[in-house]
Amino acid sequence: MSSKWVYQFNEGDKSMKNLLGGKGANLAEMTSIGLPVPPGDTGKKLGDVADPLLLSVRSGARASMPGMMDTVLNLGLNDTTVEGVIATTGNPRFAYDCYRRFVSMYGDVVLGCNEGGDIEGDVFEDRLEAMKKAKGAAFDTELTADDLKQLVAEYKAAVKDTTGGDFPDDPRAQLWGAISAVFGSWGNDRAVAYRRMYGIPDDWGTAVNVQTMVYGNTGDESGTGVAFTRNPASGENEFYGEFLVNAQGEDVVAGVRTPRPAVELEEVWPDVYAQLMEIRQTLESEMRDMQDFEFTIEKGRLFMLQTRNGKRTGIAAIRIAVDMADQGLITPDQALMRIEPEQLNQLLRPIFGPEDKLRAVEEGRIKAKGLPAGPGAASGRVVFSAADAEAWAARGEQVLLVRDFTSPKDIRGMDAAQGILTAQGGMTSHAALVARQMGKVCIVGCSALDIDMKARTFKADDATVNEGDWISIDGFTGEVILGQLETRPPEVLQVLLEKSMKAEESGSYRYYAEIMEWADNTRTLGVRTNADQPDQSSDAIAFGAEGIGLCRTEHMFFGGERIMTVREMILADDKVAREAALAKLLPMQRDDFAGIFRVMGERPVTVRTLDPPLHEFLPHDDIDTRETATALGISEDVVRAKVEDLHESNPMLGHRGCRLGIAYPEITAMQARAILEAACVVQKEGVDVHPEIMIPLVGVKKELEDQTAVVRRVAAEVFAEQGVTVDYLVGTMIEIPRAALTADKIAEVAEFFSFGTNDLTQMTFGVSRDDAGKFLPQYVSEEKEIWPADPFATLDQEGVGQLVEIGIERGRSTRPDLKIGICGEHGGDPESVKFCHRAGMNYVSCSPFRIPVARLALAQAAIEERGELTLEK
Amino acid sequence: MSSKWVYQFNEGDKSMKNLLGGKGANLAEMTSIGLPVPPGDTGKKLGDVADPLLLSVRSGARASMPGMMDTVLNLGLNDTTVEGVIATTGNPRFAYDCYRRFVSMYGDVVLGCNEGGDIEGDVFEDRLEAMKKAKGAAFDTELTADDLKQLVAEYKAAVKDTTGGDFPDDPRAQLWGAISAVFGSWGNDRAVAYRRMYGIPDDWGTAVNVQTMVYGNTGDESGTGVAFTRNPASGENEFYGEFLVNAQGEDVVAGVRTPRPAVELEEVWPDVYAQLMEIRQTLESEMRDMQDFEFTIEKGRLFMLQTRNGKRTGIAAIRIAVDMADQGLITPDQALMRIEPEQLNQLLRPIFGPEDKLRAVEEGRIKAKGLPAGPGAASGRVVFSAADAEAWAARGEQVLLVRDFTSPKDIRGMDAAQGILTAQGGMTSHAALVARQMGKVCIVGCSALDIDMKARTFKADDATVNEGDWISIDGFTGEVILGQLETRPPEVLQVLLEKSMKAEESGSYRYYAEIMEWADNTRTLGVRTNADQPDQSSDAIAFGAEGIGLCRTEHMFFGGERIMTVREMILADDKVAREAALAKLLPMQRDDFAGIFRVMGERPVTVRTLDPPLHEFLPHDDIDTRETATALGISEDVVRAKVEDLHESNPMLGHRGCRLGIAYPEITAMQARAILEAACVVQKEGVDVHPEIMIPLVGVKKELEDQTAVVRRVAAEVFAEQGVTVDYLVGTMIEIPRAALTADKIAEVAEFFSFGTNDLTQMTFGVSRDDAGKFLPQYVSEEKEIWPADPFATLDQEGVGQLVEIGIERGRSTRPDLKIGICGEHGGDPESVKFCHRAGMNYVSCSPFRIPVARLALAQAAIEERGELTLEK
Repeated sequence: MSSKWVYQFNEGDKSMKNLLGGKGANLAEMTSIGLPVPPGDTGKKLGDVADPLLLSVRSGARASMPGMMDTVLNLGLNDTTVEGVIATTGNPRFAYDCYRRFVSMYGDVVLGCNEGGDIEGDVFEDRLEAMKKAKGAAFDTELTADDLKQLVAEYKAAVKDTTGGDFPDDPRAQLWGAISAVFGSWGNDRAVAYRRMYGIPDDWGTAVNVQTMVYGNTGDESGTGVAFTRNPASGENEFYGEFLVNAQGEDVVAGVRTPRPAVELEEVWPDVYAQLMEIRQTLESEMRDMQDFEFTIEKGRLFMLQTRNGKRTGIAAIRIAVDMADQGLITPDQALMRIEPEQLNQLLRPIFGPEDKLRAVEEGRIKAKGLPAGPGAASGRVVFSAADAEAWAARGEQVLLVRDFTSPKDIRGMDAAQGILTAQGGMTSHAALVARQMGKVCIVGCSALDIDMKARTFKADDATVNEGDWISIDGFTGEVILGQLETRPPEVLQVLLEKSMKAEESGSYRYYAEIMEWADNTRTLGVRTNADQPDQSSDAIAFGAEGIGLCRTEHMFFGGERIMTVREMILADDKVAREAALAKLLPMQRDDFAGIFRVMGERPVTVRTLDPPLHEFLPHDDIDTRETATALGISEDVVRAKVEDLHESNPMLGHRGCRLGIAYPEITAMQARAILEAACVVQKEGVDVHPEIMIPLVGVKKELEDQTAVVRRVAAEVFAEQGVTVDYLVGTMIEIPRAALTADKIAEVAEFFSFGTNDLTQMTFGVSRDDAGKFLPQYVSEEKEIWPADPFATLDQEGVGQLVEIGIERGRSTRPDLKIGICGEHGGDPESVKFCHRAGMNYVSCSPFRIPVARLALAQAAIEERGELTLEK
Repeated sequence: MSSKWVYQFNEGDKSMKNLLGGKGANLAEMTSIGLPVPPGDTGKKLGDVADPLLLSVRSGARASMPGMMDTVLNLGLNDTTVEGVIATTGNPRFAYDCYRRFVSMYGDVVLGCNEGGDIEGDVFEDRLEAMKKAKGAAFDTELTADDLKQLVAEYKAAVKDTTGGDFPDDPRAQLWGAISAVFGSWGNDRAVAYRRMYGIPDDWGTAVNVQTMVYGNTGDESGTGVAFTRNPASGENEFYGEFLVNAQGEDVVAGVRTPRPAVELEEVWPDVYAQLMEIRQTLESEMRDMQDFEFTIEKGRLFMLQTRNGKRTGIAAIRIAVDMADQGLITPDQALMRIEPEQLNQLLRPIFGPEDKLRAVEEGRIKAKGLPAGPGAASGRVVFSAADAEAWAARGEQVLLVRDFTSPKDIRGMDAAQGILTAQGGMTSHAALVARQMGKVCIVGCSALDIDMKARTFKADDATVNEGDWISIDGFTGEVILGQLETRPPEVLQVLLEKSMKAEESGSYRYYAEIMEWADNTRTLGVRTNADQPDQSSDAIAFGAEGIGLCRTEHMFFGGERIMTVREMILADDKVAREAALAKLLPMQRDDFAGIFRVMGERPVTVRTLDPPLHEFLPHDDIDTRETATALGISEDVVRAKVEDLHESNPMLGHRGCRLGIAYPEITAMQARAILEAACVVQKEGVDVHPEIMIPLVGVKKELEDQTAVVRRVAAEVFAEQGVTVDYLVGTMIEIPRAALTADKIAEVAEFFSFGTNDLTQMTFGVSRDDAGKFLPQYVSEEKEIWPADPFATLDQEGVGQLVEIGIERGRSTRPDLKIGICGEHGGDPESVKFCHRAGMNYVSCSPFRIPVARLALAQAAIEERGELTLEK
């Protein structure tokens, strides 16, 4: 193996400084390529007339980024030095091919000739195509030295046209220009946006690699290629790449000619192929990660140009990490740090076949893009109401529910649909929350949709979609696609949930299982789930839930005939009538809880008492009002008067949570009774249940005292009646800033805390997540960047995080063994979960499908705490 | 002067312990009466048959409280000892008069005979009245010894009936019972509620005074009375009180017989009167406060029974404090600590004549009670819309605006009305805020009102009030009264605002002026005002404002034709159209600001940029929609679509404040231009203006950076155009919890902070003040006492206060000279203002009419900080 590394342009490199005549530069860290570096000085000199040095200048960033200047080849050419190249090679066509390549690449990436506002097409490509057409050439390899020389002149004229200046002839000026362009490109918009998206720090910066040229374009005895040490899509341990004969590096990726699969190198240059196989091993054993590398074959001789960690899909990331750990190349800890937790989702979600998706793009069927709230892929016929979703699904239709937004009464319709698409709301809107908990594919905040509920139609871009039309939604990307696309269920789910496949039959399941095992051995915090129903609970256990962190009792209020009984309770004139209605709800709730306790077994189950304002349960339209009045035997006016009476200006900050329980202690009493009776029943069945009763929206210690007294009184009654005692706790959500600030006092009463960071974020920011859609896009835009991220998706550590830390510290100051968790949506967000680890919580709780992500993120947090490894980006 | 103090029942008192046979009691601090105590032991003994000791037992609390046991007289009597009294006095009628008084008082206050659930009337009074009727007696003085003896038997039977037990005959048991009752009464509901209302600490506790009896009921040679050293209503320095011949203490206050004015004592007992005049001086020189004392004349000899600081009206409190300071009895600091800041309001508000009010009570015309949000008294004809209020007022009618609640578009109607009465909303609702700022009488949250807007009528209790009917509202008490009551403007306002009276002509103005002068010499914080208009500003200056702390620019958006221009701006399709509409608003806003700057002169003026969500400016009914569409030449559907588009679930947490300015920088730019152009104009007129531009609802430093950049850019333009430079600041409201938590970062940009504690309280508590009415009454009720006070009226120091302290500390950590104030409604609440002093703010800002209160409270805070004096309750 040989290689021709010449200059690594970093501070320690003396030769570069010599080359630049002693001009210093303050440069960032450079990629370590880990390969032997051959003698640096070829004896040639930049700008030398007789035997000129030509250089390639490329970015040395740790990761390549869209928009960043990648490479300028053949630097050093001008009308004088080109003669030197001709003189030393005897190949004018080669010399002018290099020259025209240089002018166009330099003009493109350094001078920005294609970035003007009113330029269409590519000023260099257009001229090349014109030349090819004029000469009847199919490929540029068919152009002659004269053709190419003329192209150089035309390219330079194009530079003059678009930039107003002459193309720089001085090789040193060329070099400085290229180096500046590399550094400058670190800060360009697309690179910045990319770093933001993937959480790459701005201060990493880039290095610049300056190398002497080797040439793949000397003729058919030369070539160039790009390859990966493993398959970057599937992660399979196989050589994977492409090459071209008689070409320079950019030709492979530019797609002008169709490259050949790298394995065919074996036929063309068997020696080179054998050498590459050896290098592939060396690279992996040196770099201990899958490598993406470039090579050039100059007159049959292999030169390595660069190598870097290769980009890969989530599925490949997992497989490569596990395989490398199994091979002993890396430790399991390192494997854990190789996987972005979100990548696990790719193992857990139904997906569209890539071919179908590509076709949709080509056919222009992608009509809108919203926020990808529930990952996965779904196709279905459009319906516009929860009732329709239920009805259509009942007759076997596959439907997508499209609405402006959803509310708790849409739950059953959402459950019946394949996916949910809303025009309004953010990543933690009702639709998004419920969808993720249900494992539904969901896109929210798709503001390009113009929904006409009456006409049962929506417009998106130039398309009009009617009720019953097929659409598809991609919950990974937020794309809304016309027509039906096939989906396929991932094997991991077939093994875990559907049990339609055995673990050993699955190719991918073992990767999931191995990562999860390593994660569980490493993490120090527990993982619970947010679940309201037995089937959700059992899914959650399959995903690794160690308990329920949030069971929302109000979701149980919407099923079947229950809603009428709930309304009867709300419309009751007095406490006696209210208690009569509550008595009807009691057995229903008790059965719900018993079902959950049976599934969860000895795992702790945290049940939150009623939280939403009562008006959410009342009818919102005339038909529903009429039905309610009829069902309850009262006048419609009474129903309407109640709706009006309960109306609130800001329901988020209204009569809800423990404020309801304090006004109507009989509601809390009924719920406590349902929970504890169910617990006693299941306890008698031989299961050691551990209910934890959680009082929501506490801001003042006395609120919790008041509600705790109700629960304890009921508990004493129930245990006496049932003749059995259950181990239960009473605790509270910390979701109001005041609760965090006075956590020391609240912990005098609370046996556990659960941070409700959804509401805590709303109140700490003074932002309603239901309304934030109006300004959130601008706030997180790269232009404004007022918020570094959507605070409802990733916990705002700077602000909200302070309240969490204050709450934990003060809570434990009065109750040192206080059990503390989080049950907001942040419990399934990797960065937020890591914060929970650092803040000293005992567990996180998230929706069932987020559990694997949380397990992995918690393991990473534990590893990061040791300070040796960081998550690799 | 002689007096017969025998036992002061506190721990240091040996004689009491002897009396009780060595039984110890753990007792609270006792009232210091400050009078010489004559020899303690009369030689008589409790329960002695021959010459029995009779005692009075009374509470020794520092302040008397409703519901507290006050006094039991003649204790020690039973069927045996009554004979001893007859033997030593030779007056059976007197002995039985004492006996029946004792049984009824003891039965009432110690045994609780009148507190059973199903008892109507008074069990003792009823029997007394029956006896008087049977004997044809007009007064109890006409009953014979036998009549009274029979009453004793009947009273004892009544005790047996109501309590089921016998009346205790053992004098020691009687004494212990009375002592227990006094201690127990400290904790009864009414006393607790009273302490809560007046901020008296629960841990003060009460002492018990036990005295030997002296008798005012031996016949016409005896009597009893109650007097004040000064007039407790007016504060005038005159002897003031009442007495009765042949009576015991309780007869005077019970109102059975009509007492005579104390000055008539001079005719009846000239020596006693002279002695009392001397005692009056002694008491004041000893106690150094106005005293409320009881006395008894036994056979022509004066005995003092007790003295305590007298309750007084606010007007009297001020006058007495000032007069005593002028007399040299107390220092000006002590005078300042004698006045509850709220009492100042009584000098500043129109009031109902007390006679008219009394008549209304007697005639049952008080029909409802709400929250007294705007002090004062007003009568007017009922109207139900702001438009009607304007129209009726324009034709010379005096109107009261009655609504469920008010909104910014009601401003002009509110201004036209004498007062505002709303069924909904709390002490800081829109109606309450604006009313106080306007100085309007206002009652809010009067939930007993059942308003039918369509029928233009409301019901309250048994009354139906139609549009045009006269009602009166008392903004001191929250009472709603049928009919028209005369009001009178207080002199202080005639001097300060109306200038219809010269200071030296007013009897009361000098008291106000003197207190304010002392307060200003003492306080260390500035006082600014919240004002939006020149006339408000000039009122505020009259009240002592040293600047404007909050000028809300949006209030200027509702006047006249402006609202249509505002709507044109909101309905604009693009930035160009929006800027065109803003250009029309610019001169209007500029004139507004110029007017304010001219009035305020060199005082700083803090102007807040646009804060409310835009939908507040759009039409809310069909007529208004039609008018808007016509005026702007667009379709009604466009208007309706915009209204729908801007609708928010929780507008409080929605698209408002700086979030608007960030979305539409042209709005901020227009407002900054209006402020700074006006400032330049007035500066050129020779006034050194100091505008402070305040960006609302900042939660993240970048928001403030963004808006500050807009302001500074405009400022540079304006100063260049105008050829003059104005000294201005750019700062922010701290009204979002996150802003307080990250105040160190925000202070890197902000030149001043103003705590917006209204919103800060809403977000820290997670409570919308517009919706809190549903549970606030229960939360502050004595039964629940979840909140010690309404946090919107008095700053919650435990929770919200922490954020204020954090915000101040962190803000000054990066900008040590940061100017910090408060501009929420709390800036006019005495307790909150004192907190602002302790927290280290530079100034408070409040509505004009609250300025005197704030000045006084700040003086008290400065005095309290020195640690020598506390506010006297």
